[in-house]
Amino acid sequence: MKHLLGIADLSEEEIWTILDTAEEMHDIQSRPIKKLPALRGRTIVNLFFEDSTRTRSSFELAAKWLSADSINVAAKGSSVSKGESMKDTLQTLDAMSVDAIVMRHAGSGSVAQAAGWVRASMINAGDGMHEHPTQALLDAHAIRRHLRANDLGDLSGKRIAITGDLLHSRVVRSNVLLWEKVGASVVLVAPPTLMPPGVETWGVETTATFDEVLPEVDVAMMLRVQRERMQGGFFPSEREYIDAYGLTPRRLRMLKDGACIAHPGPMNRGLEISSAAADAARSIILDQVSAGVAVRMSVLYHLLAGEEK
Amino acid sequence: MKHLLGIADLSEEEIWTILDTAEEMHDIQSRPIKKLPALRGRTIVNLFFEDSTRTRSSFELAAKWLSADSINVAAKGSSVSKGESMKDTLQTLDAMSVDAIVMRHAGSGSVAQAAGWVRASMINAGDGMHEHPTQALLDAHAIRRHLRANDLGDLSGKRIAITGDLLHSRVVRSNVLLWEKVGASVVLVAPPTLMPPGVETWGVETTATFDEVLPEVDVAMMLRVQRERMQGGFFPSEREYIDAYGLTPRRLRMLKDGACIAHPGPMNRGLEISSAAADAARSIILDQVSAGVAVRMSVLYHLLAGEEK
Amino acid sequence: MKHLLGIADLSEEEIWTILDTAEEMHDIQSRPIKKLPALRGRTIVNLFFEDSTRTRSSFELAAKWLSADSINVAAKGSSVSKGESMKDTLQTLDAMSVDAIVMRHAGSGSVAQAAGWVRASMINAGDGMHEHPTQALLDAHAIRRHLRANDLGDLSGKRIAITGDLLHSRVVRSNVLLWEKVGASVVLVAPPTLMPPGVETWGVETTATFDEVLPEVDVAMMLRVQRERMQGGFFPSEREYIDAYGLTPRRLRMLKDGACIAHPGPMNRGLEISSAAADAARSIILDQVSAGVAVRMSVLYHLLAGEEK
Repeated sequence: MKHLLGIADLSEEEIWTILDTAEEMHDIQSRPIKKLPALRGRTIVNLFFEDSTRTRSSFELAAKWLSADSINVAAKGSSVSKGESMKDTLQTLDAMSVDAIVMRHAGSGSVAQAAGWVRASMINAGDGMHEHPTQALLDAHAIRRHLRANDLGDLSGKRIAITGDLLHSRVVRSNVLLWEKVGASVVLVAPPTLMPPGVETWGVETTATFDEVLPEVDVAMMLRVQRERMQGGFFPSEREYIDAYGLTPRRLRMLKDGACIAHPGPMNRGLEISSAAADAARSIILDQVSAGVAVRMSVLYHLLAGEEK
Repeated sequence: MKHLLGIADLSEEEIWTILDTAEEMHDIQSRPIKKLPALRGRTIVNLFFEDSTRTRSSFELAAKWLSADSINVAAKGSSVSKGESMKDTLQTLDAMSVDAIVMRHAGSGSVAQAAGWVRASMINAGDGMHEHPTQALLDAHAIRRHLRANDLGDLSGKRIAITGDLLHSRVVRSNVLLWEKVGASVVLVAPPTLMPPGVETWGVETTATFDEVLPEVDVAMMLRVQRERMQGGFFPSEREYIDAYGLTPRRLRMLKDGACIAHPGPMNRGLEISSAAADAARSIILDQVSAGVAVRMSVLYHLLAGEEK
Repeated sequence: MKHLLGIADLSEEEIWTILDTAEEMHDIQSRPIKKLPALRGRTIVNLFFEDSTRTRSSFELAAKWLSADSINVAAKGSSVSKGESMKDTLQTLDAMSVDAIVMRHAGSGSVAQAAGWVRASMINAGDGMHEHPTQALLDAHAIRRHLRANDLGDLSGKRIAITGDLLHSRVVRSNVLLWEKVGASVVLVAPPTLMPPGVETWGVETTATFDEVLPEVDVAMMLRVQRERMQGGFFPSEREYIDAYGLTPRRLRMLKDGACIAHPGPMNRGLEISSAAADAARSIILDQVSAGVAVRMSVLYHLLAGEEK
């Protein structure tokens, strides 16, 4: 692997390799000395054209715990605001001989495009409505840990419902691709106005009726609703959205034994997810955050430590 | 010690322990190689909901000199701006298995509240008008060094005047608590409009007449006046404020031998403090800054190195 | 050397020393482990009162690759915005016992002024329209590498044209001083409205006719035009500027064998430089970026490693 541009480019074997290494990396979090020498002397740039505390911090910690050097470049204050082209910005950072560039950008496909311009390894940290591969990998890692801890087997054969604003989500596409590759089945749950265009070509089940699928799934993954889109006419009102698609206390009771609740965050408590669900024993939402550091350590390791050989 | 939430929670013994360790840490600043291995592999997050160059830089250097990893999270660009609750923000950072969170927030009591939500050690870097414990500790450390250098004994029995905008200060409460615990006496100097509400229950002397107390104090600590509050009717005019409460050249001459001048910064030269006072030989204002790094190293050391045992 | 305030203060010998060390430092960029122990335990502050991704990142990487600790302080969010004087800001950072302060500020001469206030080494990363010494040094380093790679000798005796908005450039003065010291000749090319005031006292050739000098130069260095100044009446229109001063495809063909193209970036493609020129084989624009890290490592090394002796 040279880049991580999307789940679409990964083979099933590569996914399992990343997840297995993440399992090994995960242990470091319970140690007092969180430090592995694996990437000493490697340099990683976090290039965020859009803000993200969670993802940026997670990559930054992953780099530091692997002993890499890491610098942050934000769009504000960058040459971009002086009218420089994205290509020149990328090639400039690349000319500083950095080893990897972790990039978030509003343009779908922008990270893959960037990979054509640079020598460094590109890592997609979210490109528009396209992919967010480390999010799907961390979801898989967290769910896998939940399954193992409860003696429920591995990911293959499991059933996942992804519910909410699928139209504006960069998470859904990466997740659908990943679950398909590891042999799990996905059902997308949203009103027609929030379904991604062309979803019928994704080869995945869709429904507008949450209650129908909820009792049978192993994972209920809830997506964030951006309140500002409430005004956009995507759904009639907050109350109606909650009634139809919120993970309310009533729906929480519909989940089968062993089923878990996931959310990529940040959450709108009381909207797409109730506090009863977010804080339930079966919620793995904070485990996803821990999984994020482990998965990013694994990805950085495979992209950069392997390079030497 | 698990957290440092305020001076209120510290015993006198804990205060002396922190100050004594700060004395040892202080020496590193005169060495060419500023690096101790004590916190290698520990991770510290600087979570600042309000800007502060001085405090954030000081904590960041303290962490680095102790070989800890340190990342910065600012409120702007954080999930908070996406409507996430403070609890979820804290628990998310905590789920990344960081060891300590240094937090500044406009809400009084917010850091103590946060400590109830996380496994990490919480360090209060200023919570609203409540406490700013490392500031009081660094004040004590800097004053103690001044006293020793001048053969004037230790903190106990000394007399400190804290003068200025006490109403909006997070420094004053921490200082009053600390001086009382180490056996020093404090007099608060301000017009009635700038006295904290309920100050009569603090068990501390107050006055509106600076000139009365100035000749007898060992420390004249001046607090910053926020010019924007000038418009708030807290005092009639800049000139009248300076006349009544500024550390003017005239008042500088009223200080007794060995008395020192302190200010937590940033200063408004020509308002609460004249340049003659700020730059006087008896000013310890820059020593307070040096003391800040030493005291924060001491606090980080006691919270995080001790954890291992 | 204690500070690096400008090329004006450097002897020819010091310039060659910095460039020779940069040559040694340059090799690290092609190694998998980019890490030298030279500045372990030294602390460098990047104090940027104006934004600059490129320069700040380059200094940050240089510091990290030399194993120094480095922290960033931006003007926004700094005490400066609370009305603190620049002197107090500098002395506060200095009191934290940092070893060097890399400073960018809009005020010409501000960094030299700062050097009078602190114990740390000051490095000028651009002070208003005055100097930007590491930029001139990296230009020299990149051009020198180009000359060597093409068996064209060293810098002495070469001829450089610097073309464009010389009036608002902090690069041009440092370059003119450097080329003169190393025995190269400079010609400044710009319309009279964009010539620096007093340029006639610089002892350097000037012209308004780019085509006259272009065929004879060894280096065509193009400077950024700030589009917002287009409105200022400095030149009639973009089209006329390009016709007279742009490095267009036509002009690209006028360059002699072995001549190279430089630009400090960020570029306005299609304005002062055509993409044909920016991406030509003889363009050293990205080499300048790589040279930047090497030159800054060299400067940090000479200022801070030498200090120990």
